[in-house]
Amino acid sequence: MKTEIIRMLKETDGYLSGQELCSRLHVSRTAVWKVMEQLRGEGYEIEAVRHKGYRLVQAADVLTAAEFASFMSGRQLGNQVDCNEEIDSTNNRAKYLAEHGAPEGTLVTAEVQTAGKGRRGRTWVSPPGTGAWFSLILRPEILPAYASMLTLTAALAVAEAIEDASGLSAGIKWPNDVVVSGKKVCGILTEMSAEPDQIHYVVIGIGINVNMTEFPEEIEKTATSLYIESGRRIRRSELIMSVMKHMERWYRVFLNTSDLTGLKEDYMARLVNLNRQVTVLDPRGEYRGMCLGIDDNGLLLVKREDETMEKVMSGEVSVRGVYGYT
Amino acid sequence: MKTEIIRMLKETDGYLSGQELCSRLHVSRTAVWKVMEQLRGEGYEIEAVRHKGYRLVQAADVLTAAEFASFMSGRQLGNQVDCNEEIDSTNNRAKYLAEHGAPEGTLVTAEVQTAGKGRRGRTWVSPPGTGAWFSLILRPEILPAYASMLTLTAALAVAEAIEDASGLSAGIKWPNDVVVSGKKVCGILTEMSAEPDQIHYVVIGIGINVNMTEFPEEIEKTATSLYIESGRRIRRSELIMSVMKHMERWYRVFLNTSDLTGLKEDYMARLVNLNRQVTVLDPRGEYRGMCLGIDDNGLLLVKREDETMEKVMSGEVSVRGVYGYT
Repeated sequence: MKTEIIRMLKETDGYLSGQELCSRLHVSRTAVWKVMEQLRGEGYEIEAVRHKGYRLVQAADVLTAAEFASFMSGRQLGNQVDCNEEIDSTNNRAKYLAEHGAPEGTLVTAEVQTAGKGRRGRTWVSPPGTGAWFSLILRPEILPAYASMLTLTAALAVAEAIEDASGLSAGIKWPNDVVVSGKKVCGILTEMSAEPDQIHYVVIGIGINVNMTEFPEEIEKTATSLYIESGRRIRRSELIMSVMKHMERWYRVFLNTSDLTGLKEDYMARLVNLNRQVTVLDPRGEYRGMCLGIDDNGLLLVKREDETMEKVMSGEVSVRGVYGYT
Repeated sequence: MKTEIIRMLKETDGYLSGQELCSRLHVSRTAVWKVMEQLRGEGYEIEAVRHKGYRLVQAADVLTAAEFASFMSGRQLGNQVDCNEEIDSTNNRAKYLAEHGAPEGTLVTAEVQTAGKGRRGRTWVSPPGTGAWFSLILRPEILPAYASMLTLTAALAVAEAIEDASGLSAGIKWPNDVVVSGKKVCGILTEMSAEPDQIHYVVIGIGINVNMTEFPEEIEKTATSLYIESGRRIRRSELIMSVMKHMERWYRVFLNTSDLTGLKEDYMARLVNLNRQVTVLDPRGEYRGMCLGIDDNGLLLVKREDETMEKVMSGEVSVRGVYGYT
């Protein structure tokens, strides 16, 4: 009933009468009143006017199952949400749930991560309440070698969701950093459990810097938040569900062909490396070249100074380069 | 001390004097006597003769840390052993240990698996005491796409260990079934946890039918045991440690080049499909052809009836064919 009331409040422009709430939900006035009190306790600002009804002044920036459910409308990704106050890492929790049978589309969120993880065993700083830290469980029927493409798919979905929620232009630094004004606002860590010829599940961990007002000196040159860039606070539940919506669309496009044919164009339109000089840190020897985009499998196309073309795998190299997004 | 005593008993041809045991281990006669009693309780047959000492008549077929350690000599694989009486599956236990930091080479064994796993979610029947059910944790620095080659590497190691222990000729049905007289004696299930460009760990689960005297009617045409084929009982700890020894060698060879260049020849010498007709169950359409071996990445080379060559991935097909090994 709580979810239903949140959804009805959001959908109503103006006041929602207590009578209507009671008759649509088949409950008493007292029951409705109790839920309103509960929502207020969670931070929702709800105005009640005699003879008019209830009006949602401001939804709360809470990560609760009821709040997430109020956004859902028949989609699969984010359909089940596991909301946590404080856990070690949303990816670890998602892996645990996946091992125990959680279905595709299960979303895991946390207010605080005590041991947030970055790629290749690095740590990810995730202070309480200000960021969107979440992980999504997928069970695609693809080979493990194709999982890297899901990371690019997620980067595209995040960039679009950020743009929807904040109005900021969001670019992608290949393969999967989302940047605003040349600084990183989102990191993505994809993990999987697989047999050599079959994926059991993939967990896509996403960390978005949402409402931080400042960063430690060491990273303030390379990291930013949506609040710092846009000057306004973004509701995290709305942002996360927007990522789910965009991801749902692109994930289906990806599964159609098991490659990036269908989303390459949209990805490249956001690729900050495009038509710029990049330095490829190939273990066999660093080299420079011009970034010409990605191929259908998400490999970076680089034209070397001697005109030869290279296809760069994220596993073998890192890419350095100017990536200011204007 | 127990491990040391087992190893000394095994290394001594004839009698090992109590005096020598005491002085080498710096313990009392009573302490030695206690360990001997304990070993007899576990099933070791130990003769004690006054004025001569102790003699190992017959080692026990037990899976204990002390017994495994008595085989070790500076190798890495099998260096740490997690021995279990009854667990759901050795792969699940190994994955749990790997998630919690167990190092490369950790071996997990069980007398009974209550939910033994086969490939692609199938179950694996693992009755108590008669089979060698074990899993090995590896942490190779390779891409997830290369993990399938570890399965072929393990199949080669198992075939060689079976031959050493039983004298039977062991063949390999591509990619990773080990067969004796055309019937399956071993199955291998490889699972991994990975990022798209980095493996966290690989668990190689191996089930060998060792001392079964018969099989249920449904599978007796396709499955056999080392006992049925050779007429003698094989000690499982010795067989498992022999697999570790062979695996250690081939794993190093594999890591040298990150492909099967160095072990292709030995693998092909055991490949029961070689130069035989095979039916490839390609999802795009079944076809027949002649098996010409494997390539450096472990793909099966098949010449179709129209002379075109195919490279078959285990993820895409199964291979049917006569594979009697003579």
